[in-house]
Amino acid sequence: MGDEGHPAVEVRAAEDGHGEALTPSGHVKAFELEVEERDHQFLTMAVDEAYNGVKLGEGGPFGAVIVKDGKVVVCAAHNEVLKNMDPTAHAEVTAVRKACQKLGRYDLSDCEIYASCEPCPMCFGAIHLSKLKRLVYGAEAEAALAIGFDDFIADAIRGTATYQKTNLKIEKGSGKAADAAEQIFENTKSKFVMY
Amino acid sequence: MGDEGHPAVEVRAAEDGHGEALTPSGHVKAFELEVEERDHQFLTMAVDEAYNGVKLGEGGPFGAVIVKDGKVVVCAAHNEVLKNMDPTAHAEVTAVRKACQKLGRYDLSDCEIYASCEPCPMCFGAIHLSKLKRLVYGAEAEAALAIGFDDFIADAIRGTATYQKTNLKIEKGSGKAADAAEQIFENTKSKFVMY
Repeated sequence: MGDEGHPAVEVRAAEDGHGEALTPSGHVKAFELEVEERDHQFLTMAVDEAYNGVKLGEGGPFGAVIVKDGKVVVCAAHNEVLKNMDPTAHAEVTAVRKACQKLGRYDLSDCEIYASCEPCPMCFGAIHLSKLKRLVYGAEAEAALAIGFDDFIADAIRGTATYQKTNLKIEKGSGKAADAAEQIFENTKSKFVMY
Repeated sequence: MGDEGHPAVEVRAAEDGHGEALTPSGHVKAFELEVEERDHQFLTMAVDEAYNGVKLGEGGPFGAVIVKDGKVVVCAAHNEVLKNMDPTAHAEVTAVRKACQKLGRYDLSDCEIYASCEPCPMCFGAIHLSKLKRLVYGAEAEAALAIGFDDFIADAIRGTATYQKTNLKIEKGSGKAADAAEQIFENTKSKFVMY
């Protein structure tokens, strides 16, 4: 957990009765209990979303919830691959996109994400790129693999690339086009806003 | 390269005059020359898209092109992170989404992708998930890192996870919510179409 320095949450812990007359270590314990409670609450919400997506016939059984400032639900999302005919519409990617739309920014560094399952490398990339500060996931990838989902789910968190390369030829281009590609960055760096 | 068995391309090589009266090894060479030519053409198109995106002010200097059956351009896309306020709108993800919309399916196994730069783990995940059969990229990640882009770009192709974990707390949930998350898959497997 280790996020004891968050003043908003600490104050709230005191206000709702858990934090009265606590010693410093008691404060930490009350905070940890509260984190555990809200983790349970938001992870349950992500689980509900997973079931909801299947019920609606919109995609696989995966759900995600993004929470701001430790308490405000920004959005909940489920896998919409089938609904949108979009292999990138995983729950976590969809949640990141929704949250950014809703908050009007692409930096979610004041937010956490709760995912029903260990995120795949694509989703983990989206989580990293949006600067989400914390990820809590429910199921291990194996639970999804057991019913036939793509092995590569397991690669992201574990820092492996065992599965994701198996079905694809990868080539570094050569010649003038590849040289031109290398030059893009130096040639454009003064012309766009770094994000 | 190694895709000599593709009959449509082989025939086309003969039709346009490169393949007349060739020995079998001559056929292979003519095919390889043609692959080299079209790789140059499509990679150049991806490079142009990268510049185009910056010119339009829509995002960073990254472009991608998806090509079907070795010859038909399905779509070209550039990074639209700034335009769409969406950190997942990288060129490759955007190209995958566009191609799937256009073709009305989420399986791009008859397509190749040309990317101006080595794809980041999120984009590489999208490429893998859409079953694209070949990736040709232009610039090495270092060209992007040199002007300040996120280090984690380099993780995907190289099979590392050196950078992507640095700014995020990751926790496996525990307790009932996590147990419920594990159970989702067994509980839903008969209720959705595996994709």
